[in-house]
Amino acid sequence: MSLIATARATESPDVITTLQSVCDEQGLLDLAGRLADLSDLVRWDLANLEQSLDELSGDDVVRRGGLHLLNRPGKRLRPMCLALGARVGSGFGAAARQLAVAVELVHCATLLHDDVVDLGEERRGAQTTRAIYGNAASIFAGDWFLVEALRRVHEANVPGGLSSLLEVIDEMIGAEAVQLETRGRLETNPARYFQIVEGKTASLFRWALGIGGRAGGLGEDDCAALADYGQNLGVAFQLIDDLLDYVGSSARTGKGLFADLREGKITYPLIAGMQRDSSVKALLEEILALPPHATPRPRVALELKRVLEASGAVTECRALAERRARDATQGIEHLPDSRAKQALLTVALATVHREH
Amino acid sequence: MSLIATARATESPDVITTLQSVCDEQGLLDLAGRLADLSDLVRWDLANLEQSLDELSGDDVVRRGGLHLLNRPGKRLRPMCLALGARVGSGFGAAARQLAVAVELVHCATLLHDDVVDLGEERRGAQTTRAIYGNAASIFAGDWFLVEALRRVHEANVPGGLSSLLEVIDEMIGAEAVQLETRGRLETNPARYFQIVEGKTASLFRWALGIGGRAGGLGEDDCAALADYGQNLGVAFQLIDDLLDYVGSSARTGKGLFADLREGKITYPLIAGMQRDSSVKALLEEILALPPHATPRPRVALELKRVLEASGAVTECRALAERRARDATQGIEHLPDSRAKQALLTVALATVHREH
Repeated sequence: MSLIATARATESPDVITTLQSVCDEQGLLDLAGRLADLSDLVRWDLANLEQSLDELSGDDVVRRGGLHLLNRPGKRLRPMCLALGARVGSGFGAAARQLAVAVELVHCATLLHDDVVDLGEERRGAQTTRAIYGNAASIFAGDWFLVEALRRVHEANVPGGLSSLLEVIDEMIGAEAVQLETRGRLETNPARYFQIVEGKTASLFRWALGIGGRAGGLGEDDCAALADYGQNLGVAFQLIDDLLDYVGSSARTGKGLFADLREGKITYPLIAGMQRDSSVKALLEEILALPPHATPRPRVALELKRVLEASGAVTECRALAERRARDATQGIEHLPDSRAKQALLTVALATVHREH
Repeated sequence: MSLIATARATESPDVITTLQSVCDEQGLLDLAGRLADLSDLVRWDLANLEQSLDELSGDDVVRRGGLHLLNRPGKRLRPMCLALGARVGSGFGAAARQLAVAVELVHCATLLHDDVVDLGEERRGAQTTRAIYGNAASIFAGDWFLVEALRRVHEANVPGGLSSLLEVIDEMIGAEAVQLETRGRLETNPARYFQIVEGKTASLFRWALGIGGRAGGLGEDDCAALADYGQNLGVAFQLIDDLLDYVGSSARTGKGLFADLREGKITYPLIAGMQRDSSVKALLEEILALPPHATPRPRVALELKRVLEASGAVTECRALAERRARDATQGIEHLPDSRAKQALLTVALATVHREH
């Protein structure tokens, strides 16, 4: 599932349409219908978000660098989740809209800094900011987005909003540190992997849902339930993201296949693969030994993909994602029924069935 | 003038002592006496600051990277200014202490990101964080300090503190962009130079003084006067800093001579030099053409230093710094007399007479 930046209020967001066709093919007709509802519900919210993002401007190399990423069609999954959290409550009002912009900005800030760290060349189907404008512009553009996000959260003035976001960013930095320390090391383990994912990805989803609910006037318990949903959804989302690096189509994910591995990121499919088939380690060692940006030999790439599937590592990874998506949905089942709640159930389902 | 991290409450900060001897040599006996007063006044404040900084901890590569810089003896000029601003008012209380930590953290955050951008090898007399822990750790450590600073400012809850700091950081980023765009370009001009200095250095001094005053309970006008003092002081400080890259001793500045030039930074002494002597441009072109980290030929380096002095560029730069320092002091002359006000006058005077 994916909602793109170019979504216009008058048309169904493109990627929802794509997913609908996937769902139909897979016989997931119920999901397809649900996605149509989700699309109707969030269309205006996302159009509104794009409008707010469009207001960010600037001519210098740093601003142009930041806007290059921000204006690319991204999934906008985090702001959409925030909007849905708010809609479980009283609705997506002005404060929630500020927070939705902020969560996308924080996400983009981390991408801008990550791309410098990873020497990333491609992002959202285009060259990275650092590839076009240089590392310096990418670093400062990340700083800009961070500051801009915090400014908006401060202005939105939702109780606990700013301090909780600062805590989450601190958590994300801690996870970045773990990732740096395990980089390229095949002896990592599932616990380390989940430490990174819970801290780096899931924490921001948790914040988006919880603060969305708060902005929608919900009480402590409902906000906590939404936050838990966000944490579980974030992990499910990342597991699938990491899986798509091996079984997905690079045209759809917007970055080259095996991009994670070439950056030394030993993700869950690989950890499970190594545990299940002793040949995986040698394949990974061969790929890790390549110089940066070198493409693995097709035979090696195909063999890795084959053995990850044959060993059951792919199935295990997908099953784990499905379990976290189920945990996500179960945690909000007790909330009063609403279109927004139904939409969140759809998001969780769609997250594990997405192909990019 | 310089106040160092290892200052203990029971002894005179080392660098004040150093400066005192310089002042004596130069016959600036009045300044030496003033510095002794300043040292007495801020000794406990700085010891307190170091204690707060010591409380920042963490074992991972990002935290260790950040602390490597933070724990080096730095001038602590920004927090000292903040403390003095507060002392012009009712004193250096708990909120002001939080703000003082924050201003040093923001400063260190910019150093950590700048060193990645500039491929800096040496800082505060030691290897840079990026040289020891890598670029990634330096970027994320900068993010950490930024978040930690904003958290403290938020907690300090001084009216306008957080939003004004966010604005200042945005201003600093804008100045970084201008610096990136003019990097290595000899056709820059004084206006661009001052745009960078006012935005990148002076704005944080302005904030430190203004918010210090606010934390000390001063009214709008007094805070504005202190903020103006900060802006002028920051420019004076940077002019001297840039001058010391050419006429200073590398053992004292804690980084190699000509470090700015080798990073493509065309600072005021060079701009004035080019305007005054046509031979400067060729010397600069020769140095800029060197590969990164290469040392200029001694003959070229000596000749550049000589011609900057002989042409009057050094004198002009120092005179400009002195004028801004005078503007700084004149702007606070109307404030009621106090030890803190006298200390600020001393800081301005000492800034333009420092040798590192």
